[in-house]
Parts: sequence; structure tokens; C-alpha cells
Amino acid sequence: MATPFQFEYSTNVEEMKRFVVECMTKIGTNSEYASQFADQLIYADQRGHYSHGLNRLRIYVNDIVSGTTAKAGTPKILKQKGSTAWVDGNNQLGAVVGNFCMKLAIELAKEHGIGWVVAKGSNHFGAAGFYSTQAAREGLVGMSFSSASPSTYSPRSSEVAIGNNPLSFVAEGENGDNFALDMANSAVARGKVEVALKIGKKEVPSGWGVDGHGVPTNDPEKILIGGGLLPLGCKEETGGYKGFGLCMMVDVMCGGQCFIAVDPECFADGFHPRLQQFLDETRGHKPKDPALPVLVAGDPERAHIEKSTSHGGLIYYGAQVEDLNGLAKKLGVQPCHFNQMAQLK
Amino acid sequence: MATPFQFEYSTNVEEMKRFVVECMTKIGTNSEYASQFADQLIYADQRGHYSHGLNRLRIYVNDIVSGTTAKAGTPKILKQKGSTAWVDGNNQLGAVVGNFCMKLAIELAKEHGIGWVVAKGSNHFGAAGFYSTQAAREGLVGMSFSSASPSTYSPRSSEVAIGNNPLSFVAEGENGDNFALDMANSAVARGKVEVALKIGKKEVPSGWGVDGHGVPTNDPEKILIGGGLLPLGCKEETGGYKGFGLCMMVDVMCGGQCFIAVDPECFADGFHPRLQQFLDETRGHKPKDPALPVLVAGDPERAHIEKSTSHGGLIYYGAQVEDLNGLAKKLGVQPCHFNQMAQLK
Repeated sequence: MATPFQFEYSTNVEEMKRFVVECMTKIGTNSEYASQFADQLIYADQRGHYSHGLNRLRIYVNDIVSGTTAKAGTPKILKQKGSTAWVDGNNQLGAVVGNFCMKLAIELAKEHGIGWVVAKGSNHFGAAGFYSTQAAREGLVGMSFSSASPSTYSPRSSEVAIGNNPLSFVAEGENGDNFALDMANSAVARGKVEVALKIGKKEVPSGWGVDGHGVPTNDPEKILIGGGLLPLGCKEETGGYKGFGLCMMVDVMCGGQCFIAVDPECFADGFHPRLQQFLDETRGHKPKDPALPVLVAGDPERAHIEKSTSHGGLIYYGAQVEDLNGLAKKLGVQPCHFNQMAQLK
Repeated sequence: MATPFQFEYSTNVEEMKRFVVECMTKIGTNSEYASQFADQLIYADQRGHYSHGLNRLRIYVNDIVSGTTAKAGTPKILKQKGSTAWVDGNNQLGAVVGNFCMKLAIELAKEHGIGWVVAKGSNHFGAAGFYSTQAAREGLVGMSFSSASPSTYSPRSSEVAIGNNPLSFVAEGENGDNFALDMANSAVARGKVEVALKIGKKEVPSGWGVDGHGVPTNDPEKILIGGGLLPLGCKEETGGYKGFGLCMMVDVMCGGQCFIAVDPECFADGFHPRLQQFLDETRGHKPKDPALPVLVAGDPERAHIEKSTSHGGLIYYGAQVEDLNGLAKKLGVQPCHFNQMAQLK
């Protein structure tokens, strides 16, 4: 007999939001903050970035319960000058701080052309693109950045040296199309190595990571246990020092998190149609393999949104569903309603 | 008998500047613009980025002589709002447009916290770091970006898809130390492949480039003739789509060139000592090989400046000296005076 882990399950966005909000209010978060937080998690799962979605709900819940993340308070502006602001997130949920800062950046950009807001006292804010997209929806260019926990080696170091600090850059073309770059500055996310190990792979591609001495390895277990990731570019000879430089750049910009909005109307006219043309032309390049068309940043996520939407909104594996049901039980909250889909091959 | 190509030659910055200014004024550039342009070339050679220094003088001269680059005129501000400006470079030398824009960005940053200047109608501006460094010297964070000619494939494309559009980010720590990221968004610069071929290597590392069908190759000749570079991250499985995304990001920001200055005093206090601590800590990570210490962006260039300075200012191979002497003769300008150094091994 098939176990629940061998199936996929679907639900809709409203039901998932109801569930997340109930979990968070149950532990003392106010409903407005819980709602913002739910949107952050759902954004990631809709796009197939499960490492940044409901998968992390338990961690966020624990952080609130333990007091690591504050359950009451508001972000505050510490300094404001021209296009800039410095914000103390007052240890609120990352989504609350991020939304506060990006809203401010958008207002500043509308007034001064640019809004550049740096936050301290924030927490894990999920997918960086969630915030950049808010600016893009207003016709602006949105960027966001975050420092991350150390995970990544310098191509030369024998120890972990830096976080794989993500950067995102989102701008809209026409008819809802967009360029949506949202990337960690390691060659691959840690989640990819974890998945490889989970499905029993003995080897991952060269360049993904190193063992505990900084020596490149293909063994996912050595990378995950005591080892770490390589920066974008991998080894020194293939440009790993550039990815390491990008990791450092994000730390210099943030020392926390950073949110930028830019009004493209301050520069050349016709930004959105010109961007659309650029997206169309880039996708139009002849691929090596006709089954693998040339993509622009955001296309894989767009494909996943389409797939999820066609199944009602969100899709999860059985293991994730079991975990959420367990959390519901623990918190005394009505579980999220899922529909069982096809059995996995 | 040793040929001149087997020696290194040195000169000093003042003499090289005299030579470049005489070349450029001889073909009709005004002396102020020629001086700015000389500084741009010398900046690159001092740092060992010979592909962006005097090596290109002939190309710039030809562009002025042929009228591809204008020899008279001034950059003009087309739009200005808050932190932003849009500039028409009026087809002046890249150094002239870049200096104009970064000066403006610095002024805007001092007034509004951020200066964000985009230029159209510019020309090849040399090393991006030349402009970012100007902001850094004022205690600001400097960034500059440029679109480049198509050279780079998407990890999926069978044809050249984009330029390896450089980005730079420079900020000062203490006592003149700095973080100076200045990188093209390909795995390596085309110049590295050219050098490999020139010294007779039959193979370059996997990940540097592709043949004319977009298929990864180790053959430098195939990469250079009809093929091209891979983006930072190399193949798709090692994150090449991220480097490709960065190339596109720079194009979206620029459509020409972009210059940003940020006043760090608008955010957390003590930016420069904190940056210095970050640089020191990063360099302090235990290296795999004690002979190869962990570096931060700007360190290799710093080492080259020290070496050049100890030899009077600038160091060149014989082939470069011969080429410059030939140009001097052609233009009827007094050649740059070089001192012959050691014979190359």
C-alpha cells in the first residue's frame, strides 16, 4: 500500500493563508503581522522555492515561542535623509521588517527617484524576491539583499568564511511579464545538496561544495556535515573569487538587510516596453537543445506558478503535509485542507 | 641574442601620462579630456589589468581619428530628479563621460544620501573600478556598471547572447585599505583565454567557454574563434544561470553605463572601521595552502600596485613597449621613456 509520502497534495492560497495566520496568532503574533508573514511563505512555495516556504514554518514558530523573534512591537526609522533611511526592525518577523522597509523605499523612490533603506534588528525574511516584487508591481525596479548565516567557503579557505548572501532584482516588462533575479551567491543553495542526499545520490556535481578542510568534494554528506558551499563561480580558476566578492558586497551593503527601489522614469523613456523587448529577444536565442529553451531570471518560477495554479494554488509532497498536520495538532489549530493528487512515480 | 620581447620595462606615471596626453592632443582631443583619459588607462595598468590599459590606446586613437568617438563636446544632463540624473555623454571618451557622471553622483549622494546616474551616448570606459574608486576616496561607497559587446553565451544557448557586463563596488576601510570588487560577469575575461592561446596552451579549464554551437570546450582557439565565454557559474548545473542573470541585470540597469554613490553615514555609524574589521577577519581565515592566503576583492590589484611602484610606477612587457613606440612614430609624438628591467624567464 502506498504511504502518504508517495503522493502530492494541493491546496488553495486562501486556505493555506488561513492556516498560517491561525498558527501565528495562536502563539501571540497579531493578525496583521501573521497575514504579512503568510504571504511571504506562500510566495516562495508558489514559485517552487520550498526551502523558503511552509517548510520553515516550524522554525519561525519556535523563534516566536522562544522569544528569539519578538511577538510585539514595530519597526522604527532611526535616520532619514533624502533617498535613504535606516530602520531598526526591533526584532520583528523578517516579513514585517521587510514590508515596512520596502514600502518606505517605494515612497522615497517616488519622491526622490531612489529609495534605499537598510534594516538592522530583522530576522530571516524568506525569499528576497518577495520584497523586490512589491516595488516592481509599482512600476519601479526593486532590489533586496540579506546577510545570511555562514555557509560558504572562500575558494582558498579551509573553514567557512561567509553567508551565501542573497540578492534580488525585479523589474516588470509588459502584461505582467518580468525579469526576476533572486539568487544566493553560492554556486547552488544548500537545499540542492540536501535533496541530492535525501534521494540517495552519492555524488553531486563538481563545484557545489567542499569538505571540512575546504577541499572540493562530490560527496553530499561531506558538504553537509562539517563542510560547506562554494561561492558562485566555484573554484578560483573558474571565478569563485567573484562569487565570494559578491557575498562580501552584500554584507557590506546590508550588515542586515537592504531594500532599494528605483524609478526608471528618471532615466530613458519607455523602460517597460524596452525591458519586454530584451526579455523576448533573450528567450528567442537558439537553444542547444530545443527541449531546453533559453530562459530569463524568473521563468522557472513562472512555470511553477502556472503548475500550482492549475492545481488550485499550491502543491506539496506528502512529507511536507504530514509535517504541517503535526504542527497543527501541536498548536491546536485546524489543519490546512489538502487534496490528494497523483501518486508519485 | 635576446629580443626586446624577452624583457620587462618600467616607466613612471608622469612620463606615461605625458605620452598619452601628447598622443591624444595630437589627434585633436583637448588636453583636459586627454588627461582624464590617461588616468583611466594608467589606473588599469598599475593594477595589472593590462587588457584595459595602454593595450587599448591604439583602439581609442583609431576611434577618435575615424570619428566613432567625438573629439569635441561635453556630456549633458538630460533629466535630474532627487538622487538621480540621466546624462547624454554626447559620444565623448568613456573616461570623460564616466568622470562627469561619477562627480555628479558624488554631489547627489552628499545632498540626498544616494547619487544614481545613468549615461547614454558613452564609449568604452576602461576598468569600472576607476569610477567607483572616486566615490570611495570621498568616504562614500562607489558602484559602476557598463553594458559590453556581446561575448557570452547563456548556459543553454547555441549563440552569443549577451555582454559580460562588468560591475564594480568599492568602499574604503581604514588607512587607505579598501574592498574593491571589479569584475566582468563571465567566468573569466576573454583576455585570459587569449593569454592561454598566446603562450601555447592547448587546454583551458572547463567552464571558461564554449564553441560556436554553445557546447563547452577546453580548446582556447574554439572559444576565441566563433565561440564565446560562459557566464559566472559556468554550466547550468553549477549556477551559470545566475551569472547570466547578473549580465542581464547590468544591462537592465544601464542600457549604457551606470554610476552610483552611497553615503554610508546615512546608515549605521562607524562604517569605515567596521569594514576594516570585516576585511581583516576575512583575510584572517585559515587558508588551505599557507602560500595562498584568503584574499578580499582588490588584494591582487594592491599587490600589483606595490610591485609596479617599487619599479617606478608601471611595468610592461616588451611587446607592449614596441607597440607604443610604433604608435608614437605613427603619430609623430615623442615615445614614452622606458627602463629595461630583468630578462624574462
